[in-house]
Amino acid sequence: MKGNLFVISGPSGAGKGTICKAFMKKHPEVYLSVSATTRKPREEDVEGVTYFFVSEEEFRARIARDEFLEHACYCGNYYGTPKDKAMEQLEAGRDVILEIESDGAMQVRSHFPEGVFIFVCPPSLEELEARLRGRGSETQEEISSRLEKAMSEFHRAKKYNYILMNDSVDAAVSRLEAIVTAEKCYMPRNIDFIDKEFLK
Amino acid sequence: MKGNLFVISGPSGAGKGTICKAFMKKHPEVYLSVSATTRKPREEDVEGVTYFFVSEEEFRARIARDEFLEHACYCGNYYGTPKDKAMEQLEAGRDVILEIESDGAMQVRSHFPEGVFIFVCPPSLEELEARLRGRGSETQEEISSRLEKAMSEFHRAKKYNYILMNDSVDAAVSRLEAIVTAEKCYMPRNIDFIDKEFLK
Repeated sequence: MKGNLFVISGPSGAGKGTICKAFMKKHPEVYLSVSATTRKPREEDVEGVTYFFVSEEEFRARIARDEFLEHACYCGNYYGTPKDKAMEQLEAGRDVILEIESDGAMQVRSHFPEGVFIFVCPPSLEELEARLRGRGSETQEEISSRLEKAMSEFHRAKKYNYILMNDSVDAAVSRLEAIVTAEKCYMPRNIDFIDKEFLK
Repeated sequence: MKGNLFVISGPSGAGKGTICKAFMKKHPEVYLSVSATTRKPREEDVEGVTYFFVSEEEFRARIARDEFLEHACYCGNYYGTPKDKAMEQLEAGRDVILEIESDGAMQVRSHFPEGVFIFVCPPSLEELEARLRGRGSETQEEISSRLEKAMSEFHRAKKYNYILMNDSVDAAVSRLEAIVTAEKCYMPRNIDFIDKEFLK
């Protein structure tokens, strides 16, 4: 059986990065895709682990060579998901997680409707604002831009399969684990087995 | 938030009863619907726990009063799900499980497409046959009738949301727990929250 593609998105500050990190700690059998980006590394970034950091010129060349599963420009920086590695892992039967912005998620959805699209949601608007301010690495202008972007992302929530409430990281990770397990039982992924074993 | 209705079905011998029993032991917060039936009690039956045993006359009267969520005649006996109790529990926010035959499941689906329909599947045809024979409470004729019925049920598997493989009871119960949790995150059940909290 092929692996499933889980696309985890949601507004900046909803906590998708934290959830994915905690999930991956418990599930090294899952492949977490590493995005390429043109944004400047922050202190906590590790090349090849948090992102692949590339120049804008290189990024544009990769777009031209159709090497991204999705790509988007967000707050002046490019972000993209390398295609080859994710496809390899799925074919080999490994589940793959993409943690990406919603522009990218919608691109992936148009090419992979069989993917599982998960919208990470903060418990409240107040909490979202507090998280964005608390991060401390953005200017006021950047925070405002992210909040505005967040609002447009909520309008897209209905295009996802699941809403993953991030009221606590542990609870959100448990829900994500349940979604990953439940999707393995999803009928369209298992109907071939029924046909072959019982209706041959 | 209202409870979710889980309809668990599948061929006789697939193990849906065993799975539900084991699940309920771990999850007394869920309401397991008790069916009414006209079949004769077996030794292990307990009135009001395994079934409500009623006469055929009484059963027909209840059908006439529209008191069943679904009902079916199976191997010469009537089986039906009392409507009022299940509806009450859902409204009160409690998840409800119906363990019923597939004729009934399809009836429920036509009235409650928002229900979660789960097809319990034995690991192989050989295993299914062995389980039916091993039960020992049926005549050869009854076993043949159940096997024939089983085949027609596999044709309906594609009308369910999930295929729950019963290779081991523990594994099947874990998968069922995951489905119950994942369904709470299902987008259509959460989009009102997004609308109210973030897009008001």
